[in-house]
Amino acid sequence: MTDPVTYALVPIGFVRSGLTTRAEAPRQGREGAPEAWLEIDPAYEEALDGLRPGAEVLLLTWLHQGARDVLKVRPRDDPGNPLTGVFATRSPDRPNPVGLHRVTVLDVAAGKGLLVRPLEAVDGTPVVDIKPVLDSAEG
Amino acid sequence: MTDPVTYALVPIGFVRSGLTTRAEAPRQGREGAPEAWLEIDPAYEEALDGLRPGAEVLLLTWLHQGARDVLKVRPRDDPGNPLTGVFATRSPDRPNPVGLHRVTVLDVAAGKGLLVRPLEAVDGTPVVDIKPVLDSAEG
Repeated sequence: MTDPVTYALVPIGFVRSGLTTRAEAPRQGREGAPEAWLEIDPAYEEALDGLRPGAEVLLLTWLHQGARDVLKVRPRDDPGNPLTGVFATRSPDRPNPVGLHRVTVLDVAAGKGLLVRPLEAVDGTPVVDIKPVLDSAEG
Repeated sequence: MTDPVTYALVPIGFVRSGLTTRAEAPRQGREGAPEAWLEIDPAYEEALDGLRPGAEVLLLTWLHQGARDVLKVRPRDDPGNPLTGVFATRSPDRPNPVGLHRVTVLDVAAGKGLLVRPLEAVDGTPVVDIKPVLDSAEG
């Protein structure tokens, strides 16, 4: 058997947050998550041009604590919920643990990156992409 | 200089579409994109459990034709648009060319995968994740 083809994501930066453990992080940003800095690698800073405070963006992260061999979970870890395929859930445990977070840009600071809110990702989470929201119902 | 850390995405399946070239693909799904099958690797089929026709999902793809060294573009390739950082655009040319597509599930077929619409990704595009939309304004 040959190794399967894979695609290499590079971190463009890292989350700097007061949240340090998955246990204390809300399950979703809208469930009380704090603001956080996205510290962007200077090599990619130019790609932020055009992002301004107030912008709504979709942040993609690498959920480095996710378990990649999990195909079914009980949503929200509730034993009363039926086992469900991970592609029908937002579990961080999934074959490619890419996190998707809709956040508002609060500040853009040269040499520092973006301040955003609300973000449930823990401190040290790698950031892999930032995309503008196209319209309110968009994802 | 040491090699940077990277994260390996594995394809969970591939897009099967009548669109075969980037030139003929609409820029966004809502700009007249067709339906397409997502052919899912049998190893991951179990993870689809719970997805049903009518579900709104966010599809993540690997835009294998994207140019990863591009940091600024003129949005929509319009020479009248100012050079803009790729993180403020939805250009497929970006450091980590992950595509994000909001689609509706039309059919779920064992051994075949998911039929979805509308999808502007070309035939052969690798699929890396599928997530349910959490609410209408979500992304």
